Amino acid sequence: MQFIEGGWPGANPKDAAFFARATSELKLHSSRLVAFGSTRRANGDVENDPNLRALVASGVADVCIVAKAWDYHVVHALRTSLEEALAMVRDSVAFLVGHGCNVFLDAEHFFDGFKGNPDFAIAVLSAAAEGGASTLVLCDTNGGTLPSEIPSIISKVNDQIALPFGVHFHNDSGCAVANSLIAVDLGATQVQGCLNGYGERTGNANLVPIIAALSLKQAISTIPPQNLQLLTTTARHIAEITNLPLSPQTPYVGSSAFTHKAGLHVSAIARRSDAYEHINPDLVGNHSRFVVSEMAGRQTLLIKAGELGLELTDDATTSLLQRLKDLEHQGYHFEVADGSLELLMRHALGWVQPYFEVESYRVATDGYHGPELLTEATVKVRVNDNRIIATAEGNGPVHALDQALRQALQTTYPSLKTMGLDDYKVRVLDTSSGTDAVVRVLIDFSDSETQWTTTGVSTNIIEASFSALTEGFVLALVKTTSSEGSAQ
Amino acid sequence: MQFIEGGWPGANPKDAAFFARATSELKLHSSRLVAFGSTRRANGDVENDPNLRALVASGVADVCIVAKAWDYHVVHALRTSLEEALAMVRDSVAFLVGHGCNVFLDAEHFFDGFKGNPDFAIAVLSAAAEGGASTLVLCDTNGGTLPSEIPSIISKVNDQIALPFGVHFHNDSGCAVANSLIAVDLGATQVQGCLNGYGERTGNANLVPIIAALSLKQAISTIPPQNLQLLTTTARHIAEITNLPLSPQTPYVGSSAFTHKAGLHVSAIARRSDAYEHINPDLVGNHSRFVVSEMAGRQTLLIKAGELGLELTDDATTSLLQRLKDLEHQGYHFEVADGSLELLMRHALGWVQPYFEVESYRVATDGYHGPELLTEATVKVRVNDNRIIATAEGNGPVHALDQALRQALQTTYPSLKTMGLDDYKVRVLDTSSGTDAVVRVLIDFSDSETQWTTTGVSTNIIEASFSALTEGFVLALVKTTSSEGSAQ
Repeated sequence: MQFIEGGWPGANPKDAAFFARATSELKLHSSRLVAFGSTRRANGDVENDPNLRALVASGVADVCIVAKAWDYHVVHALRTSLEEALAMVRDSVAFLVGHGCNVFLDAEHFFDGFKGNPDFAIAVLSAAAEGGASTLVLCDTNGGTLPSEIPSIISKVNDQIALPFGVHFHNDSGCAVANSLIAVDLGATQVQGCLNGYGERTGNANLVPIIAALSLKQAISTIPPQNLQLLTTTARHIAEITNLPLSPQTPYVGSSAFTHKAGLHVSAIARRSDAYEHINPDLVGNHSRFVVSEMAGRQTLLIKAGELGLELTDDATTSLLQRLKDLEHQGYHFEVADGSLELLMRHALGWVQPYFEVESYRVATDGYHGPELLTEATVKVRVNDNRIIATAEGNGPVHALDQALRQALQTTYPSLKTMGLDDYKVRVLDTSSGTDAVVRVLIDFSDSETQWTTTGVSTNIIEASFSALTEGFVLALVKTTSSEGSAQ
Repeated sequence: MQFIEGGWPGANPKDAAFFARATSELKLHSSRLVAFGSTRRANGDVENDPNLRALVASGVADVCIVAKAWDYHVVHALRTSLEEALAMVRDSVAFLVGHGCNVFLDAEHFFDGFKGNPDFAIAVLSAAAEGGASTLVLCDTNGGTLPSEIPSIISKVNDQIALPFGVHFHNDSGCAVANSLIAVDLGATQVQGCLNGYGERTGNANLVPIIAALSLKQAISTIPPQNLQLLTTTARHIAEITNLPLSPQTPYVGSSAFTHKAGLHVSAIARRSDAYEHINPDLVGNHSRFVVSEMAGRQTLLIKAGELGLELTDDATTSLLQRLKDLEHQGYHFEVADGSLELLMRHALGWVQPYFEVESYRVATDGYHGPELLTEATVKVRVNDNRIIATAEGNGPVHALDQALRQALQTTYPSLKTMGLDDYKVRVLDTSSGTDAVVRVLIDFSDSETQWTTTGVSTNIIEASFSALTEGFVLALVKTTSSEGSAQ
């Protein structure tokens, strides 16, 4: 990223503290940190404007200030004259430039403003240019602009303004990515947006598909070429940090973006992937996936089994297809639960897991006022010819069951110590009946080498969780015992 | 919807069964049902083609068949000659037209095909026109086409083909909605897509923002005008049925699409909503929301309190802002949990709920092999001066706790009988530590008149659920006792 906006140092103590630390502690390789703010107050004085002073005090060289480019807002929100609004822009930019800043002007509501009063919208850009701004950014703040409206507006800007311009689209019409790409075609040199499209309401323009399209399809340089293949891991990592999960359908970087499901295409894709994928997923660090579903044909199942290192017989494939259909009807979903799918394939081949047998389990939570909440689980398992009873406490029922199962099995299978639970997801499937609904649980596991996901479905969340949990343990044992060359 | 594609009657028994029942049982008001299929096989004979015969046998008058418009696919997937591919199109369309069908031709991979071999892509359209097709649909099957590529391709189609044309975009580049709108500007009369954008990989063009933009911003008629205001409920209802939850950020119909959060704008929006919203949300059956978050100013809280019928004092607002900040830091999120927010506001005003006090609770699940799984909960509560102990079984821990709490309270508060749990959601917040992570629970409640949502956060899913559950009970009692005029 050429520029990263770090916040509004004048708006609140948290953003001010960020800039105080960022300028000394943050090591940016090729990116430059930008401080955001607004123009001076109406009828105010730049020298004494706390917001402008905070921008200068932030210590960064690049600042972006927002100014209203829609006369309607000047009259009804700022409640000042159009002349004063232009003076606010000119004075504020000049003040910051005078303090050595490189200034971007965000012309707020530019597209709506242009449609209502093009002269004023253009005058705001001119005022910023007179003040010494380096780039003028046309903002679609309410996100209502449609692709067809952009060429005529931008061509008029190009006719009247000589400075470089950028764009800033919101996604309220579902067109923020396309509008940004169209604007770049028309000469925009800066695209403001957000990785993964986060932002108020329907979000800002998602920079991920914009970067990918410009770099891979239009030969316009964006991020360094060697970083393009980090796009998928970066988008997913940011989704983890922000705790705003990425939809699997996300273009380019979603887990389903190159996933092929219908039986129809799978064999053809295996031959010629460029006929069925708009880019090579490797270029953005993603990969093709073939998933198994009710619609899956034999071919899809065989390819998937091959990925897992299993060879399905004809009979096994037939029984597996029927079993998958029954389970999907119950609410199972194997698209991500490749661990559970592997076990189904092994079972279809007649395999029975030889590691342990659960006789019973019990988990109880006692809640009192205060901090004494206790969850305790007991599992009774048979391992070889031993009967083992183990009890453990946990932070919650699944944690307690995990701990009890480990305790019961680790003496016999010490390799389980390297296995961890990475994620636990719950989805209520039938929302029409509240707590009586069917629940699907997904658990992600990993050891030092691989990761796997299992699933369980039940009206009882404990049962669904315990089923996914035990499958995860079985797979951990499959992986370690087969790598040790033991019999399966 | 003018046309609804119901499936592929030749592909599997389920789709064939659908058409068998739909033609007699489904009552469509203004929509027409379309059967999907493909052209005849290479070197085959239309009269004996099982797929074409199934289309005719489906009993619907409108059919859509797909044909490859990319020479690369003809050579590598169909493995036949370009001449035979054109004959397949011409023969198949003519066969269906001869059986009285209105035929749409989906020219698969049209845009990619046009870029590689425009003559062949156009020849496919011509062959369909010669066969008697009524509309030719240009498909971007891999979804890689960018907005800038569309005008020149479509203008060449317009130059050479006289029939009406439609478009079918996939969202792999994040541009399916915009591309569809651009195509309509260039003369497309049919847009194929899916409500909510469901579909393989990254999905099909989402018809919701396309309908809204064409109807509300471009004065192009789509669905009947009086149905536009049903767009939000329809999109959400379909999301419920498909069990593919709608992102709150979904343009036009998402719960956040007209949600205003930053303190900055809220007072201005209250004055002039058209300055901050690209359309009036009422037009699509959505509405503006003001949500409370860490960033909320006093003004936002006061507006929200007003919505709930509460009058916050200055002191209460100050303490509430601090409390919200602390709770959000722990993982609480009140944007949807307006029930829990209402209780926080009441507590900030010094209110203590007078209905019941939970002394302790206990929930245990016993799992054995077989169907004997049992979950049982016991709650001990004080109601007025009585101590009540109630035990109930349930399908899972939350259900059991709900049943036990009802049993304990319903004698004193019979109005609880009309209160139900509508939805239960679990979100794991910190995915870095598996079962040890913080869990946020949301529960939706309703009675005959209103609905409310509560939230609970804990490392223990049982504790988070029980907290949200008891808050939901308290709110049910607030609502009934205040409507009965009792003291609070």
